[in-house]
Amino acid sequence: MTHVQSMLDAYPKDLGNIDKAKLVECIQACFECAQTCTACADACLSEDMVAELTKCIRTNLDCVDVCTATGKILSRHAGHDTATTRAVLEACRIACKACADECGQHASMHRHCGVCAEACRRCEAACADLLASLA
Amino acid sequence: MTHVQSMLDAYPKDLGNIDKAKLVECIQACFECAQTCTACADACLSEDMVAELTKCIRTNLDCVDVCTATGKILSRHAGHDTATTRAVLEACRIACKACADECGQHASMHRHCGVCAEACRRCEAACADLLASLA
Amino acid sequence: MTHVQSMLDAYPKDLGNIDKAKLVECIQACFECAQTCTACADACLSEDMVAELTKCIRTNLDCVDVCTATGKILSRHAGHDTATTRAVLEACRIACKACADECGQHASMHRHCGVCAEACRRCEAACADLLASLA
Amino acid sequence: MTHVQSMLDAYPKDLGNIDKAKLVECIQACFECAQTCTACADACLSEDMVAELTKCIRTNLDCVDVCTATGKILSRHAGHDTATTRAVLEACRIACKACADECGQHASMHRHCGVCAEACRRCEAACADLLASLA
Repeated sequence: MTHVQSMLDAYPKDLGNIDKAKLVECIQACFECAQTCTACADACLSEDMVAELTKCIRTNLDCVDVCTATGKILSRHAGHDTATTRAVLEACRIACKACADECGQHASMHRHCGVCAEACRRCEAACADLLASLA
Repeated sequence: MTHVQSMLDAYPKDLGNIDKAKLVECIQACFECAQTCTACADACLSEDMVAELTKCIRTNLDCVDVCTATGKILSRHAGHDTATTRAVLEACRIACKACADECGQHASMHRHCGVCAEACRRCEAACADLLASLA
Repeated sequence: MTHVQSMLDAYPKDLGNIDKAKLVECIQACFECAQTCTACADACLSEDMVAELTKCIRTNLDCVDVCTATGKILSRHAGHDTATTRAVLEACRIACKACADECGQHASMHRHCGVCAEACRRCEAACADLLASLA
Repeated sequence: MTHVQSMLDAYPKDLGNIDKAKLVECIQACFECAQTCTACADACLSEDMVAELTKCIRTNLDCVDVCTATGKILSRHAGHDTATTRAVLEACRIACKACADECGQHASMHRHCGVCAEACRRCEAACADLLASLA
């Protein structure tokens, strides 16, 4: 997603004190995680042992919804130190941690869960880093 | 949205200790608020004084994203006392409060902002009520 | 969703030739269907026979995504006779038909699929009606 | 978005006759376009001449919704030759074309519209290519 940086560079107003590198990383991680979790939920549905993966599927779907919202909210620049941005980042960090923990348990058995856990860990870290930089 | 209740009644497993009335109200409020804020952002774009409403539009769009995610996550029943559910409800409460405050300032001038502030206040209260009942 | 009508009434510009009653019905049906299909996918995941319901879950999830997009696009009034609006309404009609057909097959066994089929049929009809009125 | 390919490679069932390279490109283009259009709408809101950009903002927001839905639906593999997939791809192609045309008109004045037009053209082409390969 090379355009995330280009769009920040093309923004017509001052972006304030935000750490632009951390913001770019977090937006990219959110969209990547939303896609990967969507695909992981679907791959779980294709496993013969789907009945044992229902918690994983739900955790994936919740993570998709939070990451999609967070990636879009971060793509707006109404002032990144607002209470909404902080709360959404915190929710996204928690949802990604939950999904990484859940998918991580099946990583050795299902490769898609391993890839997904990685995408979730990256997004969890990106949310935590951006949150810390806002403090 | 009469189906919210019907779908809870038709759920094949135990829903746990959740307060079903508060859950129904919160799901309905989230979807209603997502629609109303989408429409309010668009109505603001149609105002001649749109240049003075850009903060309102952004707050509306952020609120849409959080309410959509929250309404969907609450429509899943993976256990409503998870950290993700709590964090998302808190983010939704905050986003709705921010949007109600912003739209409330233009309610006397723009009727759509008045309707929208009402939808946001309802959703803010529903999130706070459901959160309190989970504690 | 009583605010759909209120927001149309509060719109600051002319809405053009659109049939307002059909538009209200279609917006409401889209948001209702998005919620119901989200809940139906989750209820299917809670069925002991989930392995036989994976097609239903995927059809539900696809329907959620199209209905959410359509409900939001219809809530904007950039001119409802655009090619985008028509194409999205057609996609929504098709996704709702597919989901109604699929859920309808399990309605006698799973009450949530029966409720969901009803929500999908309503949305399919609302999209078809609105499309016909635009022609 | 390097995980799109990894997740396809890790899919536990046969993907059917789909052209995997075109599918990867289309999923990536949809998520990229959703992010870029979200950012472009926000950048337009920050322009002093926002009153002249309201059509562009609406077109951006519609494009976000269709691209998000399409990217998620393509990330599921329920059979890519379904009527829903085709209709959604067609709607996405049309929404991206509309947004590319609109943003393209302001590309010389607003750099963000130029970047956005590029993302939309890429997504329009990716949808058209994938559609043609399904025929």
